Amino acid sequence: MSKNEIPYKIYLEESEMPKSWYNLRADMKNKPAPLLHPGTHQPLKLEELTPIFCEELAKQELDDKTPYIEIPEDIRNFYKMYRPSPLVRAYCLEQQLGTPAKIYYKFEGNNTSGSHKLNSAIAQAYYAKKQGLKGVTTETGAGQWGTALSMACSYFGLDCQVYMVKVSYEQKPFRREVMRTYGAKVTPSPSNTTKVGRAILEQFPGTTGSLGCAISEAVEAATSQEGYRYVLGSVLAQVLLHQSVIGLETMTALDKYGVKPDMIIGCAGGGSNLGGLIAPFMGRKLRGEADYQIIAVEPASCPSFTRGIYAYDFCDTGHVCPLAKMYTLGSEFIPSANHAGGLRYHGLSSVLSQLYDDKLMEARSVEQTSVFKAAEQFARIEGILPAPESAHAIRVAIDEALKCKETGEEKTIVFGLTGTGYFDLVAYQKFNDGEMNDYIPTDADLKKGFDTIPRFPGNLE
Amino acid sequence: MSKNEIPYKIYLEESEMPKSWYNLRADMKNKPAPLLHPGTHQPLKLEELTPIFCEELAKQELDDKTPYIEIPEDIRNFYKMYRPSPLVRAYCLEQQLGTPAKIYYKFEGNNTSGSHKLNSAIAQAYYAKKQGLKGVTTETGAGQWGTALSMACSYFGLDCQVYMVKVSYEQKPFRREVMRTYGAKVTPSPSNTTKVGRAILEQFPGTTGSLGCAISEAVEAATSQEGYRYVLGSVLAQVLLHQSVIGLETMTALDKYGVKPDMIIGCAGGGSNLGGLIAPFMGRKLRGEADYQIIAVEPASCPSFTRGIYAYDFCDTGHVCPLAKMYTLGSEFIPSANHAGGLRYHGLSSVLSQLYDDKLMEARSVEQTSVFKAAEQFARIEGILPAPESAHAIRVAIDEALKCKETGEEKTIVFGLTGTGYFDLVAYQKFNDGEMNDYIPTDADLKKGFDTIPRFPGNLE
Repeated sequence: MSKNEIPYKIYLEESEMPKSWYNLRADMKNKPAPLLHPGTHQPLKLEELTPIFCEELAKQELDDKTPYIEIPEDIRNFYKMYRPSPLVRAYCLEQQLGTPAKIYYKFEGNNTSGSHKLNSAIAQAYYAKKQGLKGVTTETGAGQWGTALSMACSYFGLDCQVYMVKVSYEQKPFRREVMRTYGAKVTPSPSNTTKVGRAILEQFPGTTGSLGCAISEAVEAATSQEGYRYVLGSVLAQVLLHQSVIGLETMTALDKYGVKPDMIIGCAGGGSNLGGLIAPFMGRKLRGEADYQIIAVEPASCPSFTRGIYAYDFCDTGHVCPLAKMYTLGSEFIPSANHAGGLRYHGLSSVLSQLYDDKLMEARSVEQTSVFKAAEQFARIEGILPAPESAHAIRVAIDEALKCKETGEEKTIVFGLTGTGYFDLVAYQKFNDGEMNDYIPTDADLKKGFDTIPRFPGNLE
Repeated sequence: MSKNEIPYKIYLEESEMPKSWYNLRADMKNKPAPLLHPGTHQPLKLEELTPIFCEELAKQELDDKTPYIEIPEDIRNFYKMYRPSPLVRAYCLEQQLGTPAKIYYKFEGNNTSGSHKLNSAIAQAYYAKKQGLKGVTTETGAGQWGTALSMACSYFGLDCQVYMVKVSYEQKPFRREVMRTYGAKVTPSPSNTTKVGRAILEQFPGTTGSLGCAISEAVEAATSQEGYRYVLGSVLAQVLLHQSVIGLETMTALDKYGVKPDMIIGCAGGGSNLGGLIAPFMGRKLRGEADYQIIAVEPASCPSFTRGIYAYDFCDTGHVCPLAKMYTLGSEFIPSANHAGGLRYHGLSSVLSQLYDDKLMEARSVEQTSVFKAAEQFARIEGILPAPESAHAIRVAIDEALKCKETGEEKTIVFGLTGTGYFDLVAYQKFNDGEMNDYIPTDADLKKGFDTIPRFPGNLE
């Protein structure tokens, strides 16, 4: 096949699938700032992490030197059940837009969890099983991570306890049933099953919850049960490591057809998809082998990059987790209740935050009605109903393709389509009924969040 | 790659995708009985079909001679957005069962309609557009067909009006929102928007509806609006023709790896998936080139093959459609309300009915709790949450694989995994809560349905 004959969907052969994850930190000159102990403000050591995290995952968390880490065979076999994921050439969208741009998207939604989250869930479940644990606890926002983890745990026969942000629990009852079908126990958060949950409920009665709060509950549940550890679906460096499988497959597929992207676009909540998608491309950029414009897209209602502060902050509302240096809105920031999708975490991965601070990538924020318009347009012409999260990337990809139409530039745009919107129909219904609106936090709203960021020597002091 | 190294998922290249549909009827010695005019009981002519159906589709309906019919390029391009679908080797399930059998499934759920229905929807929308129509009307049961049609219509800019069986409309509000996102108008059936709907509501107040009734409404809506035609997602020979793309891809993939199936299993409601999956295999069988055991699986609560009568019957409750000769439970048969999934049509495709009557295939009926048990087992080990319909085939595939475990036979089993269960979580919840039960119709229940089958010379007379 000639390099010009690019199919609608590029599927790699199994033999072309990555055998190692790529650890972007190894190529970063300015390393991401280390996690700090919340009490002493000193960098955390392995032995301080292992009571909370699985041992092997804690090691991966601390390893900013090894560029490639082998993917264990059991995980590679699981990957084969739903990977390689297709890299799709958006011929129909291009034609409809009348753009000279060439648009590709890496589609991670063709699995029952409905998103890329499964890539890290199966890795984390694997290491938990290998360590001989009984089970794991976690939090979930939109429910994608919890679903992915329940699938991974059921595969390895691990107990799975999920704290689900209350607003999502109520808007997405069917996610709960998928998790239950996979044998998980799902609790709406904040709940009265943990000390920290009870404290939050007392302080903020009627709260619809937040990821930060659900994290605190899950950590408490893990550390108070014998044989359990806590696992997390985003933000952490280990998660970005596992998610590098997205970018590695994308790069192999593009290289195979001799395609060089000009621009790589991903939605950003905690950063798991974006960090995974861009990892090997950023690696080339850091090593001076190629250059790409890299764009993080976040909701205008939760604008960590575009309006946040770069500082050490709590990862969770209950302040039981390590401190991470990140672009943050403050651990008590909660997006307005009209915010319909995920991407609601208050901070962004330390890895991505460092890259952003080093101006190696840009960020845009977009409003949700414009995101759902892009989602609808994409669904109708490309045949996939996207998750609201993923539609943030679609929005900017379409905007950039339309700019190309004006300038005549034939840019190659690659974006991450992280998942499907089959469990987001309450939000779609709102949009279909014309009842969706936008809320951009005021500076005063943000200040309230910023005030909760800890002050100590070297951190905002 | 050696023929023995079979990947988890076999994806054909785009260049290997079928360029023609296969018309099984051309190879049938005993042709399926023709559709009859409901008044005169004479075989329907093209000009009698075209007021209801699109012209090109009516021609396909009547053509039992041409073995291969070219797939128009626009349809082939649309197919490329979500096809080829993977043929999956169920390594994990085989290992869990400890069976020497080799299990493959053709997975049609990786598209937003969630099922194989899109294969025919896009063809029918294409011919409607080509004919210059404004729009189409249809019925939908579980909602898969309506979703598929709404996607196909939005792609070609056609108006789409869907009559959705009331019980599904209520159990699956999210399907409605997907259809609306694709621009379709969805009405619960029976409704008071049609004469036939009002008559049915008067005769059976409180009815939860049936496909037969929704068909009547959709046909009335098509024939009473200028520039509209009626389209149907199953039963008709044209639909089986379009769905042959499933079987053709499956056969190409198996041939490529030198695999000869012993057994082909598919769920059967109206017969669209089963007819499409088995078409080219049955063709080989009819031409004496190979032999396969072919098994149709139907719900015990709607047992058209295993307990129905082979006779001419009405296709719809309102008796506005042609008569078709089929295994039928009578057009007024409605499965017990506790029946959770699709496969609720009262009859089976004339093509399949003839093959079944000629003993070229077998049928099994299975009870729904055992179907959901198989669904859960499959979801946990193969990572895909199946549609309840598809899980009927899973049930029998597992049963057959377990028989192989006893006998030591290394049979190769292929089954059709028609779709995903992401919109069937109400049913899964019932199952998870232990509140699902089985209802097998009594002979007296069935007799009531049989009594509604028309009697005329040569038909039960």
